[in-house]
Amino acid sequence: MNRQVILTSRPTGVAQAENFAIVDASSLPLADGQIRIRNRYLSVEPAMRGWIADASNYSAPVAIGAVMRALAVGEVVESLTEKYRPGELLVGWFGWQDEAVVEQSDIVRRITEVDLPPSLALGILGINGVSAHLALTLIGEPTSGDTVLVSTAAGAVGSAVGQIAQIFGCRTIGITGGAEKVAQCTEHFGYDAALDYKAANFSEALAAACSDGVNVYYDNTAGAISDLVYPHLSLNARVVICGTAAISSWSPWPDGPRVERHLLLKRARMQGFVIFDHMDKYEASVAQLADWVRSGWLRYQEDILNGLDTCPDALAGLYRGENKGKRIIKL
Amino acid sequence: MNRQVILTSRPTGVAQAENFAIVDASSLPLADGQIRIRNRYLSVEPAMRGWIADASNYSAPVAIGAVMRALAVGEVVESLTEKYRPGELLVGWFGWQDEAVVEQSDIVRRITEVDLPPSLALGILGINGVSAHLALTLIGEPTSGDTVLVSTAAGAVGSAVGQIAQIFGCRTIGITGGAEKVAQCTEHFGYDAALDYKAANFSEALAAACSDGVNVYYDNTAGAISDLVYPHLSLNARVVICGTAAISSWSPWPDGPRVERHLLLKRARMQGFVIFDHMDKYEASVAQLADWVRSGWLRYQEDILNGLDTCPDALAGLYRGENKGKRIIKL
Repeated sequence: MNRQVILTSRPTGVAQAENFAIVDASSLPLADGQIRIRNRYLSVEPAMRGWIADASNYSAPVAIGAVMRALAVGEVVESLTEKYRPGELLVGWFGWQDEAVVEQSDIVRRITEVDLPPSLALGILGINGVSAHLALTLIGEPTSGDTVLVSTAAGAVGSAVGQIAQIFGCRTIGITGGAEKVAQCTEHFGYDAALDYKAANFSEALAAACSDGVNVYYDNTAGAISDLVYPHLSLNARVVICGTAAISSWSPWPDGPRVERHLLLKRARMQGFVIFDHMDKYEASVAQLADWVRSGWLRYQEDILNGLDTCPDALAGLYRGENKGKRIIKL
Repeated sequence: MNRQVILTSRPTGVAQAENFAIVDASSLPLADGQIRIRNRYLSVEPAMRGWIADASNYSAPVAIGAVMRALAVGEVVESLTEKYRPGELLVGWFGWQDEAVVEQSDIVRRITEVDLPPSLALGILGINGVSAHLALTLIGEPTSGDTVLVSTAAGAVGSAVGQIAQIFGCRTIGITGGAEKVAQCTEHFGYDAALDYKAANFSEALAAACSDGVNVYYDNTAGAISDLVYPHLSLNARVVICGTAAISSWSPWPDGPRVERHLLLKRARMQGFVIFDHMDKYEASVAQLADWVRSGWLRYQEDILNGLDTCPDALAGLYRGENKGKRIIKL
C-alpha cells in the first residue's frame, strides 16, 4: 500500500491541515518508460500556496483529489527505462506520498553530490539554493561593494542569497522577524547587519542601515517591508521579485504605494524570477553551490519533520513562521 | 536688453502662468570660454514639472528668481572659445530667454542635420526622439512580432516610440485621449490600433487589443492606465518607466494596485529611464532618427507657439492637453 496526502478542498488563503487527507492507495504496476520511486524526503515550500490556489499562476493548480504536488528525494526501486537504475537517488516531482510511479519528465536530476546529505537536494542544493544563486546573479547582478538587502533573510532562499552575496564581496543586510532569527542571520549566515521587521523602530533602523542606498533588493515578501525599502534604492538598483509571501490573498488585489516614481528617479529595475524558466542552468548551479557548501562558505539550516502524518499541517506551519530553516519531511 | 522668463514661486502641482514673470535683464559681458547664444526655439517639456518641483528628482530644482531651465536651439552670436563660431546653430540648456551667456558644459550638441528644420532638434531629433529610441531599444528590447503598447501615444515621446517599434517589426497599440488623437495615432503615426482612455469601454477595448499579451509597455503615465495594462503583460514583458504624467503630486505618495505579483507571474521587468544617463549615445541616436525622418519612416508633429510671452502658460497648457505634438516656442 502507498500512503498519499491528497488535497481535499481548496483554501482561500494558506492551505491548512483540514484541506488535506491521508489515504491509502494501492501500488500501481509500471508502464513502459516509468520508474517507481520510494520517497525519502519531501519538500515543503512557501510557493505551494500558489500551486494550490485557484488563480493565475505559473502552473496549473493542484486538482482536488490529487496527491499534493511536491519535490522529493527518492530512491529508484523499479525502473522500466534504461536511464535510471534501482538504488539511484533522484530529485523530482514525486509528491507528498510514500511511493511514486513517475515518468522521466517528472525527474529533475540525479543526485551526484554523494558526499553530502541527500536532503540538501531539496534546500540549499535544490530550488531554494538554485533560485537564490540564479536570481541573485542573473537579475541582481551583484558587484563587489554593493549593498544587498534580503527580505526573509533567515529563510531557505534568503539565507542563501545573503551568503552568496557575501561571496561576491557585497555588504549584506538581512530583514527577518524576531530576535532569534536576527541573531541567526548575523551569527550563522554571516550577514553584516540584520533587522527585525517586528521591532517598533524598524523603519528608522532600515533607513540607518541603508543610508548609502540599496544596490540589490532580493525580495520574497511584496508587502509592507518592500514599501519601506523602495525609497532607499540606489541609482541603477536591481529588485529581484522572487516571492510575495507578505500578501495572504490577491483577491481582492491589494494596493500599495506606487513604485513607478522610485524606478524612474533611481533608474532602477524590478524583475520577477521563477526558477522553472532556468532549468538549463540548474545542474551547473548545484555544482557551484555544493562546492561552496564543502568549503564552508555556504551554510544551511534544516527544519526536519518526521513522517507523512506531519504533511497536512506542514505548509500552514511555515506561514505561522514556526520553522527555522528549510522545512523537510523525512519519511 | 535680454527678456527672461523667471520662476517667481514654487507651485505644488503643475506650474501655472502666475508662477512665472517676464523681466528685462541687461546683456552680460562674456568671460573667457563663454559663448553668447541668441535663442531661436525654446522647448516645453512635461518633465519641467519635475525640474521645478521642490522634491527629490534627478536634478536640483530651478531656484526661485532664476531663469526657467529649458533646452533651446540658438545661434552663436559671440564666442570666447575656439570650439564654437558665430553663426553656428547649437542645442543646449539656454533657458527661457532671448539671449543666453553659457559655458561649454551647457551645450548639448551642434546641429549637423542642416537639411532638416532646426526646431526638430528639440523634439523628434532631441530628447523626446532620443528618449523614445534609446529607452525602447535598451529597456524595451523590441523584437519583430512583439506587441508594443504606448501610453501618451500621440505625444512627442510616445509618437516616436510607436513609429520606431513599427520599424522594428512590432505590432503597435497606442493609448491616447479623445477621438482626434486616436485618429492621429492610426492615420499619422501608423499605430496598428489606438485606444481612447477617456472612452467608457476603455478597459474592455484594452483587454481585446491586448488579448495576446503585451511584450513591451512604454509608459509615461504611472497611473490608472498602467493599472489596467499590467494584468495584460506577457511572459518576459518589459515595462519602460519614462514618465509619471498621470500623478499630479507625490506628496502624499499615491497608492495603486501592487505590481510585484504581475512581475513574478509574468517574469516581467519594469525599469526607469532618464535620458541624461545616456548622453554618450545621443549623437548616434540623432543620426539614426534623422535618417528615418528623411526616409519618411518617422513622422512628427509640432505645436509651435509664438514669442516669449507665451512661455508662462505653455507648461500648464501642456498638462491641460491642449497641444497636438511637440510644444515649441518660436522666438
